[in-house]
Amino acid sequence: MLRKNRLFTPGPTPLLPAAQTAMASFTAHHRTADFRALFQRVLVDMKEFIGTQNDVLVLACSGTGVMEASVSNLTSPGDKVLVLTAGKFGERWTGLAKAFGCNVDVLSVPYGQTFSLNDIRAKLTPDVRVVFVQATESSTGARHDIAGIAKIVRSNGDDTLLVVDAITGLGTTHLDVDGWGVDVIIGGSQKALMMPPGLAYCAVSDRAWRRMESTTSPRFYFDLRKERKSAAKGESAYTPATSLFAALGASLDFIRGIGKGDLAKGREGLVDNAEMCAAMTRAGVQALGLKLFADSPAAALTAVCSPDGIDSGKIVKEFRESFDAVVANGQGEMKGQLFRIAHIGYYDYLDTIGILGALEHVLARTSGTDVEYGTALRAAQGVYARGLSNKQQLIGA
Amino acid sequence: MLRKNRLFTPGPTPLLPAAQTAMASFTAHHRTADFRALFQRVLVDMKEFIGTQNDVLVLACSGTGVMEASVSNLTSPGDKVLVLTAGKFGERWTGLAKAFGCNVDVLSVPYGQTFSLNDIRAKLTPDVRVVFVQATESSTGARHDIAGIAKIVRSNGDDTLLVVDAITGLGTTHLDVDGWGVDVIIGGSQKALMMPPGLAYCAVSDRAWRRMESTTSPRFYFDLRKERKSAAKGESAYTPATSLFAALGASLDFIRGIGKGDLAKGREGLVDNAEMCAAMTRAGVQALGLKLFADSPAAALTAVCSPDGIDSGKIVKEFRESFDAVVANGQGEMKGQLFRIAHIGYYDYLDTIGILGALEHVLARTSGTDVEYGTALRAAQGVYARGLSNKQQLIGA
Repeated sequence: MLRKNRLFTPGPTPLLPAAQTAMASFTAHHRTADFRALFQRVLVDMKEFIGTQNDVLVLACSGTGVMEASVSNLTSPGDKVLVLTAGKFGERWTGLAKAFGCNVDVLSVPYGQTFSLNDIRAKLTPDVRVVFVQATESSTGARHDIAGIAKIVRSNGDDTLLVVDAITGLGTTHLDVDGWGVDVIIGGSQKALMMPPGLAYCAVSDRAWRRMESTTSPRFYFDLRKERKSAAKGESAYTPATSLFAALGASLDFIRGIGKGDLAKGREGLVDNAEMCAAMTRAGVQALGLKLFADSPAAALTAVCSPDGIDSGKIVKEFRESFDAVVANGQGEMKGQLFRIAHIGYYDYLDTIGILGALEHVLARTSGTDVEYGTALRAAQGVYARGLSNKQQLIGA
Repeated sequence: MLRKNRLFTPGPTPLLPAAQTAMASFTAHHRTADFRALFQRVLVDMKEFIGTQNDVLVLACSGTGVMEASVSNLTSPGDKVLVLTAGKFGERWTGLAKAFGCNVDVLSVPYGQTFSLNDIRAKLTPDVRVVFVQATESSTGARHDIAGIAKIVRSNGDDTLLVVDAITGLGTTHLDVDGWGVDVIIGGSQKALMMPPGLAYCAVSDRAWRRMESTTSPRFYFDLRKERKSAAKGESAYTPATSLFAALGASLDFIRGIGKGDLAKGREGLVDNAEMCAAMTRAGVQALGLKLFADSPAAALTAVCSPDGIDSGKIVKEFRESFDAVVANGQGEMKGQLFRIAHIGYYDYLDTIGILGALEHVLARTSGTDVEYGTALRAAQGVYARGLSNKQQLIGA
């Protein structure tokens, strides 16, 4: 049987066809009026997509590049920072902050869990200069309570900044960047924007811009103040990834279309879509007797515990070999113990039902036991059908 | 929820991504060495794809254009021809043959059925100059017994030619063009070749070429002898659809890949794939209590009778509105009575399970009755699982 290569990984995610064609056909030089017009339009649209009045920058790098930018631009060596970590991407904050000589305090919870707000409160002394956290931890599928965390950080005063890695969170979970007072929010192109990797972006608050006037950590390519100055003139500081900007323009048009002309509504539509794919998937895997890994599962992806005695690598391999469907293994210390199915961006009903159908065969083959076909599917169909009859429940669920 | 536009129509069918990119990037002029090389390679590959030693021509037109060519090139006004018709495309043969002044005898069976070989034998007098038939009737999903029909026609002597419209048949059903003695076999690009409409092709036997020396029906654009003469010089007679040739080259490469380097095996692989998609679909719809329309269902598509009291147009509309999935209504006199789900070309397991899942919701909404979710899915999964454990059964089933 034919097997179409299909990504169910939490980035890269499936590509929007309109973004692919825009990317393939774009040839303009980056120091031309044509590109400047595209660049400026994209930066304006990105503010609406993120839902912020703060300046937005889009850089030619992966998400980790902008994570680094938020460390190198907002801290000086010796600054005390607090990292909230619950997985591999939380650990990346620790690594980055240490690399730039920060005095790193870490609040760590086991993989799959999220933070107690009281524990954060207890850690947050007045001398903490920056708090780093993920909106959703892609390695475990957990969603963190950014609204609650922001409230605590903001009550600590304007000297404490909040940096949120929302690389998988933007477009999959509700985020009120300005209302909650998030100082830097970070995203990447290969996620809800439905395009290839290569661009990462951030929105930066006035508090954060002021901080950069005094910080002394070394930065050059990721010097956000230089980039902001160029952007004000309609250009990037260094050569931009032009074809990816063209793809981004097409993706933003598509998202505006979802919102019937309103980009912010389109983003919320994407969130609702991920919520539905995730709810169908959670119901499906649980109907098969499988356990969810995260206590507070994100809509970005569903992390599923591998059945007892089965290395999740076998499940990932079977998905690829039998269906050419790429699901993700556990990361870091969870490798072999869980597999992850993404819902970020360009997924629909048929994708979701299809991968759950495939999962039933994969489980039967890897476990060597009988699986009652249709079990996960029926549960997912029920979620879909109930969702339609109760729209209220779906929006911002 | 997002809805990806997905074609489940028996042509156009889903596009192969490699064909799309080849088409998008091809710019060569058609009277250049580059295009000539592509043109010649494609014609050679097409012989292997069709499975014939006969000359193959590829024309810039839809399938009906080559149907016309087979009438105008092989008949003179007043010639007696026999049309075997069991649906809308059979009727097209009658219309074409009458338009060119043939003396048309028709063997007609009701929509959904196929021909009795004895009835054909009784109609086939020695003065019949051409027999026209479909390999699979796309309007009803019926498969005709071309091997059996060819045997009867060949036993009528070399003065009777057999023309087979295999537009949906090539790549979905086993056809031994040379072994069975098919004089003209006809295909189109928007079917098993997984590319857009715009090219149609035929393989022409020596008997048929000899016939053209004496026939007098008018033809110009579709003059096959002129086209053959140009092809021998590595060119088309008129301006070829260059970008579609580039797409065709990419599709043939993909099909060769399915056959691990062997184009003929690749075609058989495509047939097996369609057989599996069709078997899953038939099992699924029957598990829901729906009836198949065709007595001898083709793998190209599955025509399903609409439940009593429900216009199939409502079902087609619901598929489009709820899932942006395009299935086909009945054609001709069957409009409103059946819907058709295609399996031609670029479909895989996830597509097939996905559309069956969608069907369950569509039925529940259009009938207003409860559907036990997972019913069709479980049946289709069973077919898939059994198919894997019994490969023999799948090949040429």
